[in-house]
Amino acid sequence: MRVRVAIVGISGYTGGELLRILLNHPRVEVVGVCGVKSAGGRVSDYHPHLAGLWDGPIEEPRYAELGRSADVVFFSTPHGVAMRNAPEVLKGGAKVIDLSADYRLKDVSVFERYYGKHESPEVKGVYGLPEIHRDEIRRAKLVANPGCYPTAVILSLAPLVRRGMIDTDRVVVDAMSGSSGAGASPSEFTHHPTTAANVKPYSAVNHRHLPEIEQELGELAGRRVRVLFTPHLVPISRGILTTAHVFFSQGVRPEQVRRAYEEFFRDEPFVRVRQRLPELNFVVGSNYCDIGVEVSEGGEWGVVVAAIDNLIKGASGQAVQNMNIMFGLEETEGLKTAPLRP
Amino acid sequence: MRVRVAIVGISGYTGGELLRILLNHPRVEVVGVCGVKSAGGRVSDYHPHLAGLWDGPIEEPRYAELGRSADVVFFSTPHGVAMRNAPEVLKGGAKVIDLSADYRLKDVSVFERYYGKHESPEVKGVYGLPEIHRDEIRRAKLVANPGCYPTAVILSLAPLVRRGMIDTDRVVVDAMSGSSGAGASPSEFTHHPTTAANVKPYSAVNHRHLPEIEQELGELAGRRVRVLFTPHLVPISRGILTTAHVFFSQGVRPEQVRRAYEEFFRDEPFVRVRQRLPELNFVVGSNYCDIGVEVSEGGEWGVVVAAIDNLIKGASGQAVQNMNIMFGLEETEGLKTAPLRP
Amino acid sequence: MRVRVAIVGISGYTGGELLRILLNHPRVEVVGVCGVKSAGGRVSDYHPHLAGLWDGPIEEPRYAELGRSADVVFFSTPHGVAMRNAPEVLKGGAKVIDLSADYRLKDVSVFERYYGKHESPEVKGVYGLPEIHRDEIRRAKLVANPGCYPTAVILSLAPLVRRGMIDTDRVVVDAMSGSSGAGASPSEFTHHPTTAANVKPYSAVNHRHLPEIEQELGELAGRRVRVLFTPHLVPISRGILTTAHVFFSQGVRPEQVRRAYEEFFRDEPFVRVRQRLPELNFVVGSNYCDIGVEVSEGGEWGVVVAAIDNLIKGASGQAVQNMNIMFGLEETEGLKTAPLRP
Amino acid sequence: MRVRVAIVGISGYTGGELLRILLNHPRVEVVGVCGVKSAGGRVSDYHPHLAGLWDGPIEEPRYAELGRSADVVFFSTPHGVAMRNAPEVLKGGAKVIDLSADYRLKDVSVFERYYGKHESPEVKGVYGLPEIHRDEIRRAKLVANPGCYPTAVILSLAPLVRRGMIDTDRVVVDAMSGSSGAGASPSEFTHHPTTAANVKPYSAVNHRHLPEIEQELGELAGRRVRVLFTPHLVPISRGILTTAHVFFSQGVRPEQVRRAYEEFFRDEPFVRVRQRLPELNFVVGSNYCDIGVEVSEGGEWGVVVAAIDNLIKGASGQAVQNMNIMFGLEETEGLKTAPLRP
Repeated sequence: MRVRVAIVGISGYTGGELLRILLNHPRVEVVGVCGVKSAGGRVSDYHPHLAGLWDGPIEEPRYAELGRSADVVFFSTPHGVAMRNAPEVLKGGAKVIDLSADYRLKDVSVFERYYGKHESPEVKGVYGLPEIHRDEIRRAKLVANPGCYPTAVILSLAPLVRRGMIDTDRVVVDAMSGSSGAGASPSEFTHHPTTAANVKPYSAVNHRHLPEIEQELGELAGRRVRVLFTPHLVPISRGILTTAHVFFSQGVRPEQVRRAYEEFFRDEPFVRVRQRLPELNFVVGSNYCDIGVEVSEGGEWGVVVAAIDNLIKGASGQAVQNMNIMFGLEETEGLKTAPLRP
Repeated sequence: MRVRVAIVGISGYTGGELLRILLNHPRVEVVGVCGVKSAGGRVSDYHPHLAGLWDGPIEEPRYAELGRSADVVFFSTPHGVAMRNAPEVLKGGAKVIDLSADYRLKDVSVFERYYGKHESPEVKGVYGLPEIHRDEIRRAKLVANPGCYPTAVILSLAPLVRRGMIDTDRVVVDAMSGSSGAGASPSEFTHHPTTAANVKPYSAVNHRHLPEIEQELGELAGRRVRVLFTPHLVPISRGILTTAHVFFSQGVRPEQVRRAYEEFFRDEPFVRVRQRLPELNFVVGSNYCDIGVEVSEGGEWGVVVAAIDNLIKGASGQAVQNMNIMFGLEETEGLKTAPLRP
Repeated sequence: MRVRVAIVGISGYTGGELLRILLNHPRVEVVGVCGVKSAGGRVSDYHPHLAGLWDGPIEEPRYAELGRSADVVFFSTPHGVAMRNAPEVLKGGAKVIDLSADYRLKDVSVFERYYGKHESPEVKGVYGLPEIHRDEIRRAKLVANPGCYPTAVILSLAPLVRRGMIDTDRVVVDAMSGSSGAGASPSEFTHHPTTAANVKPYSAVNHRHLPEIEQELGELAGRRVRVLFTPHLVPISRGILTTAHVFFSQGVRPEQVRRAYEEFFRDEPFVRVRQRLPELNFVVGSNYCDIGVEVSEGGEWGVVVAAIDNLIKGASGQAVQNMNIMFGLEETEGLKTAPLRP
Repeated sequence: MRVRVAIVGISGYTGGELLRILLNHPRVEVVGVCGVKSAGGRVSDYHPHLAGLWDGPIEEPRYAELGRSADVVFFSTPHGVAMRNAPEVLKGGAKVIDLSADYRLKDVSVFERYYGKHESPEVKGVYGLPEIHRDEIRRAKLVANPGCYPTAVILSLAPLVRRGMIDTDRVVVDAMSGSSGAGASPSEFTHHPTTAANVKPYSAVNHRHLPEIEQELGELAGRRVRVLFTPHLVPISRGILTTAHVFFSQGVRPEQVRRAYEEFFRDEPFVRVRQRLPELNFVVGSNYCDIGVEVSEGGEWGVVVAAIDNLIKGASGQAVQNMNIMFGLEETEGLKTAPLRP
């Protein structure tokens, strides 16, 4: 069996990355590559590294038709496109994996505070973080693929939060992201001369990925978790490294902390709990999330570092992992390429 | 009047940077450039960018003689050199500015835990952070120039700590540093192929700059301040950006926070309190420390970002600033070069 | 005496760099900072590193008035602005230094092939490369400041070309430039994600800086010089390094080659002829042009490498050097800051 | 059938890259990973990105045994190891693919001028550039895998040289390489602080890859080809981009030039002749060599740009490509991963 996939939104980085991964996936047939502005062009106009690998045309998306001809449609589009068109795709019978934020937040009022009016609030997606929601994903028609920062932050805190091992009122996370997270459109924020040899903190007190983080951690904890989250743009293209600082609850012993991570991720194919804090280039180019934890001498607080490739585990790789789960394929299929270092 | 200065330790980055600044200082005469291994060589062997600017020889340091022929001797040497030789320089009458850690920590037992045996514990230096200790520096014979991370961290927290505005048990600081902070000797830690396009957290729970930070903040607070400090190597050459997270004490209002910074640094020539969080390239190439602060919506916690050039305000520029104070010169003399951006 | 200077065009990198240098120039008074789109804003909106250094307003340029109130007006504007407005400035009595291409090419028809219609072809400027045209610059009313690539290429070939030592039909130059050369406006060409960790050759056979190079080298040679010039964007912000390959004329001996460079640049304050090929970071942050030359074993051909900071010796620093010459100041005044390395 | 492979030399970048590729190769079984200094350690000590992917031990190489237990032994060792040990491996029956320079040069006296005494000059290898020597590789017992620069340079000039279309006395090539080409051992040349934001020309007139280039091009041309080759270290980790300048022979027409490339590489799975000059990130992470060519307006000269990943097509990927050919496998097996961009 081969899964017939279509991609809507090919001009951006996550679209290109999806196609790159899917073309090398032994159980997939790409039946459509669509875009609105890019329709009529070629993939290599946007992704010159993919020249010669997929020579089909870029077509205007016809959602009803995609819903019938594909088994699954990926939306690698700006926020707003999926919520207007996924319902029609679903009606045709295809499943949907949405890489945008449209279906990530369960509370529509929270969504609307950050992203504006939701146009299909009645449609519900499963939050596509396999390490937390694998069973629901398996049964899902619509998967909301997590944001890049949330993937790293949720995975690095989940074991502690679920076991009630930390003060959930005082979790501090600094994140360092490469510029590809800001997308393929040129902007002052990612203009090379002032981005190279620079570090830029931004959205220090209210990043729009925060509700997603707090929704998932809150559910794991069974109560509100407050995360002080400050992202920084660092002069690299790819990758996110997050450094979380936690204060342990009374009575938590250092050896329990490490064990919590090992047990939580024991059978996970894409999470590696490391003996030391990971570096970013341990994972870039792969679907891994590497996690390391250190506990202070006195044992009162700890540091948890997670590293992911923001375009793979933080976007398109995780989307393919979700697809594998949804269609009963081997979860690692198409995602076995090891990280590229140096 | 011109201040006669000698530099001991020229092969490293702080030595080169000192010479670079001093050669352009209108009130200084460089009377000696010394090194042990580098003796007999030329400055441009180590600092090819300075070719043609200073053609004197590199000499073996003769400390007694330097103490008589110079007004001030800078030690830009590895830890251990100053503590063995500064006493002899002081005996000759010259003042000493030590860029190493030898005299930074008041408690010798703390020093020895991090750096090994101290060989002149009876000699005391003034901690050379002008914004905190200007008056003492003015009268000092021996100034211990602060570490690079401590400069940024102490300045970014001093206003809050002195006024008792934050929970001093839970201060979290993540720092991002360029590779020049690791010095001029090649090592695996700073090998280009695995440093470029990478982020490396290190010494996450016990960096040796921590005691220096806690000593100074503790003194300002009048009680112990606990800082959770995690440095990261980011792929740039120069600069440090620190992001501090603080939890405000009951009753602190957001407008008080900003005012605390403005008042504390009102007359400081080298601290700029910014309207928004600074980026690293606002300061690189200059002696500035730029600071920005943001308070959460609810007002319970805040983020303070500081940016410095680790080799200037974090080392050699601050050393020259200290010299200017010690000799009654205009504090900004020789340090007026604006940052280089992009 | 202080020279009263005005800058027209402050939002770009060369404008900011001009102001940065002039603010630290002991013989200059900045009497006006102007811009069209930027009028009404503040310098720090465009150049946050200059915050606190110049607090005057950005004004709309009134050219007639500038011509009377300033001794010299710098145009750091896009091509086309100076050619429409410099004549009015000159009429008022001020001198003009134009950092754009408007007056660089003597042959208007060549100009128009690359840049479009010239609107004041009757006005003539002196090509402002001091190492070649110092005497004319001294007497000039209008100086056309050279392009960044031409500065490096002309200086690295001038000694050989003037002495007729090379085959002028086969000069090959590859250039590597940082992204700041493309200006402050975001574009796909300088979008960080695809510029970092990349090398981009461009305009391989007909870059618009080529006529400028051939004009000047041709004049030095007394006949046409053909340069095969291929620029490459490399992932740095600042700096240009050019590698020229030359075939020596019959009878040229290796020792003559080196001597040609040493003699040609003997008294030049800003050209350093190195014993080995220079690297880019030997000069960044300064007005130096460093040059090194190597001759093949057989002596038939040679490699000449030149390095400059594209925004300083390749633009604003050279403009100030020209100003110093035009006003009889010490040529190095305001330009003594040594390069910044690492 | 699965090919049993052993790797000798695992601590360096090419060793790690070989293992990374081979672990994902569907027709390969890794039967041994060996090293001298690294014996007893684990792969992840040297290649932390490969943690969890190969858990076997690193063993001391026993060459006779390897020759019997493996079908092919890769030497990813410093120059000198293969020439002392490959003969014993061959005796055991295994084939050898040597990534070092030991067997690349046919003329032993040339080898010895650059690398020192050859210890098995009687053993002959096939130069493993499949696009030139595929048939010989198919029959080879010992393949000498090409150097990284030669791969790019030879491929970019082969079509012109074979057809006699250019002046073979005046070929100029500038190359820009990432730092991984210098290997995994820290050195001043690749120290991050002075490598980042820098461009370093080196070995401008006599790089040791030159004889390899001239041997192969000379053979294609049927006479001596002289290449002026100047490499530059640019601040990236991975990749080589070469820019070649050629002067066409009388009568060569522009359309012939392009056609020469298209015909020469028509059936090559790993060479893409592009419509425009390639950038480095069109190929990084893959085994592709992308080539673009532009001809001057007058048609007298041209620019040929080639881009490769120095560790893949320039080393370990090409080695696997050679293995595929030697063992009659699909040539692209294990090498289908598309480039990673951005």
